[in-house]
Amino acid sequence: MNIILLSGGSGKRLWPLSNDTRSKQFLKLFKDDLGTYESMVHRVYRQITTVDPNAKVTIATSKSQVSSIRNQLGDKAEICIEPCRRDTFPAIVLATAYLHDVMGVSEDECVAVCPVDPYVDCSYYEGVQDLEKLVLQDTANLTLMGIEPTVPSKKYGYIIPETSEKVSKVKEFKEKPDKETARKYIAEGGIWNAGVFAFRLRYMLEKAHNLIDFKDYNDLFNKYETIEKISFDYAVVEKEPSIQVMRYAGAWKDVGTWNMMAEAMADVTKGNVTLDETCENVNVVNELDIPILVMGCKNMVVAASCDGILVTDKERSGAMKPYVEAISNEARFAEKSWGTYTVVHVQPGSLTIKITMQAGNHMRYHSHEMRYEIWTIISGTGRAVIDGFSRRIGPGDVVTLPKGVKHALFADTDMDAIEVQIGEEISVRDKTVYDFDII
Amino acid sequence: MNIILLSGGSGKRLWPLSNDTRSKQFLKLFKDDLGTYESMVHRVYRQITTVDPNAKVTIATSKSQVSSIRNQLGDKAEICIEPCRRDTFPAIVLATAYLHDVMGVSEDECVAVCPVDPYVDCSYYEGVQDLEKLVLQDTANLTLMGIEPTVPSKKYGYIIPETSEKVSKVKEFKEKPDKETARKYIAEGGIWNAGVFAFRLRYMLEKAHNLIDFKDYNDLFNKYETIEKISFDYAVVEKEPSIQVMRYAGAWKDVGTWNMMAEAMADVTKGNVTLDETCENVNVVNELDIPILVMGCKNMVVAASCDGILVTDKERSGAMKPYVEAISNEARFAEKSWGTYTVVHVQPGSLTIKITMQAGNHMRYHSHEMRYEIWTIISGTGRAVIDGFSRRIGPGDVVTLPKGVKHALFADTDMDAIEVQIGEEISVRDKTVYDFDII
Repeated sequence: MNIILLSGGSGKRLWPLSNDTRSKQFLKLFKDDLGTYESMVHRVYRQITTVDPNAKVTIATSKSQVSSIRNQLGDKAEICIEPCRRDTFPAIVLATAYLHDVMGVSEDECVAVCPVDPYVDCSYYEGVQDLEKLVLQDTANLTLMGIEPTVPSKKYGYIIPETSEKVSKVKEFKEKPDKETARKYIAEGGIWNAGVFAFRLRYMLEKAHNLIDFKDYNDLFNKYETIEKISFDYAVVEKEPSIQVMRYAGAWKDVGTWNMMAEAMADVTKGNVTLDETCENVNVVNELDIPILVMGCKNMVVAASCDGILVTDKERSGAMKPYVEAISNEARFAEKSWGTYTVVHVQPGSLTIKITMQAGNHMRYHSHEMRYEIWTIISGTGRAVIDGFSRRIGPGDVVTLPKGVKHALFADTDMDAIEVQIGEEISVRDKTVYDFDII
Repeated sequence: MNIILLSGGSGKRLWPLSNDTRSKQFLKLFKDDLGTYESMVHRVYRQITTVDPNAKVTIATSKSQVSSIRNQLGDKAEICIEPCRRDTFPAIVLATAYLHDVMGVSEDECVAVCPVDPYVDCSYYEGVQDLEKLVLQDTANLTLMGIEPTVPSKKYGYIIPETSEKVSKVKEFKEKPDKETARKYIAEGGIWNAGVFAFRLRYMLEKAHNLIDFKDYNDLFNKYETIEKISFDYAVVEKEPSIQVMRYAGAWKDVGTWNMMAEAMADVTKGNVTLDETCENVNVVNELDIPILVMGCKNMVVAASCDGILVTDKERSGAMKPYVEAISNEARFAEKSWGTYTVVHVQPGSLTIKITMQAGNHMRYHSHEMRYEIWTIISGTGRAVIDGFSRRIGPGDVVTLPKGVKHALFADTDMDAIEVQIGEEISVRDKTVYDFDII
């Protein structure tokens, strides 16, 4: 099975845990069978490879997610990086070209495309496997999987099949309706369009070359910025006459709001949290190292990270976006290729961060023009490279980095450090990257 | 007017803002006439000196509060330090002896005793001034001020006066009643006992010498630990036959729970807080530098400090104590004689704190056996004294302090620093203090 997972939009709908650099699919709020916390990305990869141990999984995503995916999955999944955001049709074409030109997948093979973020069980990926069988029967160019609705939801588009059989030709597609219309669609046998579909690789490449002028994967990658933004639904699905849909009736949950995430969370609370016995239907996630005490609350979500603290009525959590955008602080936690950083203190002219590096990782070699930095190693050992000289470092060692000095940290063991940044202007943009020149 | 303010119990009823070292009377949640935030201690001092610019204010308190009082009031108020906690009678005797033996107050003068923490307006201290006039008429040994009840409260003891006149002999005292009994007391003209009373200094000294064997203030201070714990009500008030009470009908609020504090707070929110428009009757205090967003909540208090985060229904806030005791973390914010510290990061083997010092202040000269420390100055200038040598320091300077090395910081301007502590054991008890030996 070839699966392209679309890992999109960072977004802030699960703020303060999700932010511009950390997408909801990386939050470890679920648990595997052994009781270990896992993220949506972990979970999806685990479920797919449980259903098909030979599945080839390619995650189509933006550059900003690569560190998180590598930190969570290592090299287990292929990553097809979009140079910039160009909506779903270019993203799917790029990933298809990647499968063909980089991974050597044959044009005859079936490729399935799924979003990375619904909360499902393994039967969903068994459904995706069934799509493959249908595709290889060549009864349609495009085979979709639609979700049997549980409520007349206004949040999803609807697929109206021609018949009520498990597999049917598609009669038509409907935009997100109001509640009344949703009821009507369901009465007609309508199902939710959850963005899951499969096709022979050849089909998609032909579509792509018809609509986009490109030679191969590398060519497309290089001119990606010039490609028109267009959704896959609009470019392909709604125009394709040879299209069928398979009904999927298993568990399926969109965890895009705190209200929905609360239903899917493995534990009612995570982190240092106390609920008094009068709390009802309260979920709390605490990523901070200070305790949270909740008393006498009902139907609420509390979530705390170094980016902020959310206290919300569950129903109301879906309305969060404009408020979070108004708060618009810079992300105070980020995953990088070398580890993670957490802002622990800010004041005008200085910023203090906690750095965590995994053994074997190193930063890129870089310098800053507007600030100097002081590293204090608090645990682990490694090396600091400063203007070409390498120096062994361990707990208690201090490294002072004047403005303009090239520097990088190498972690020989897992390593933690406090970095104090001081300068008239402190910005993530003040960074020049170099090749290493270690003497 | 001589006023003794009893500034007692640290306690955690306003956790996470109040903790073992920071009492509720130091929280800056009120505002003066110019709109500047002020604490209860500020407010009370301001109100007393508005009513009587010549008032002599002595704060009777424990050692742990001295830094906070000095930081907030400077040298404006006298401080009578209890060497240890010995309940209200010994505390009042010690303060009375302090007035007589240290401040030279005559035995003929009137002394009023008030708790530091009720939320009142100036008319309350005009009432205290009226007590003084009554005392100097010598119609009773002890003159109390009782509060006209607004509700049949179970939280206070009741004074039953003989008549319903403004000033009356006391008929009897009643313990905290149930609601039904409270109604009965109020129907009989009963008023709340709020611990406000006045007497001639001579009267209290005589009582003191009758009950405690001591010579003068210094003698009492030195043997304070051996004095029996006993409340002033039990030792004096309930046994005194010559006792009168004055009714006070002005505003009076006990801000000992978040529910009550929310009513008295100057602003509905303080700090970086966003309430959506569907919130009703929600108060938020945010001392952290990350934003708090509250959505769709009703009748709640949210309070956040580096010690923790509280989310509570207002009614339920009074039941907080056992939960907070169970959380029982060490205080992560403290006021010291030299400034304040805030814990910004903890992990096994290391603790990182942000230090803020006011210009002119300095630490005591000290060393640690079990940890080393690294200071990084982030703003301001001063001097670091290390094993007898003094060194000028400013932004970006780093000072490394091995185990056993004597050290202290002097702030020449307001100064901020990040201190990283590293060691197998990190404890506030690991501290040896020295006299300075600056070369």
